[in-house]
Amino acid sequence: MSDCIFCKIASGEIPVDKLIDDEDVVAFRDLNPQAPEHILIIPRQHLERLAHADESHSDLIGKLILAANKLAKKLKLDESGYRLVINNGESAGQSVWHLHLHLLGGRDFNWPPG
Amino acid sequence: MSDCIFCKIASGEIPVDKLIDDEDVVAFRDLNPQAPEHILIIPRQHLERLAHADESHSDLIGKLILAANKLAKKLKLDESGYRLVINNGESAGQSVWHLHLHLLGGRDFNWPPG
Repeated sequence: MSDCIFCKIASGEIPVDKLIDDEDVVAFRDLNPQAPEHILIIPRQHLERLAHADESHSDLIGKLILAANKLAKKLKLDESGYRLVINNGESAGQSVWHLHLHLLGGRDFNWPPG
Repeated sequence: MSDCIFCKIASGEIPVDKLIDDEDVVAFRDLNPQAPEHILIIPRQHLERLAHADESHSDLIGKLILAANKLAKKLKLDESGYRLVINNGESAGQSVWHLHLHLLGGRDFNWPPG
């Protein structure tokens, strides 16, 4: 865990501007944004990937998604639209091994989603 | 609500093969698949879009995501990878106005996600 960059961001060891910083959830802007707004929302708890989440994490997952909703509203993305993406595993494009939710907005999105 | 195609699928009025059909969640294959496996996971409850979900839906949202996890495991997508996508609003590509989660797997995915 000590090598996890998202754990270091959550703990403040790596300082970043946080859009959410509460007991369970931390949110900050993606360093390689793929849209005018591109925010990563993570649980403070280290979970390597979504596939490791079970019934015991149901509440936490609900909080992550609702945090995305609140941010979208705050950033006025809810009027036009926003896309949420979770990549699980290498073939899906997961590159940081701490569960994270992508919130993207501010432009039109294409289909398929990557 | 009577005109909602996903409500009709959930109720059985429109028959489709269901991969999940429980008290809260229904899952079935997308008619226009964008990957070898492309499944839609919906709440039985009619919610027009994710932005309409609030704290009272936290548990339901947790169930939707965990249902995706279980399906991914069943379909052996968890070994390679899978991508979850929720489109909220027209600019994000939402085309059916009943909250749904896309589970995509069986191929490599590109970035950006659409």
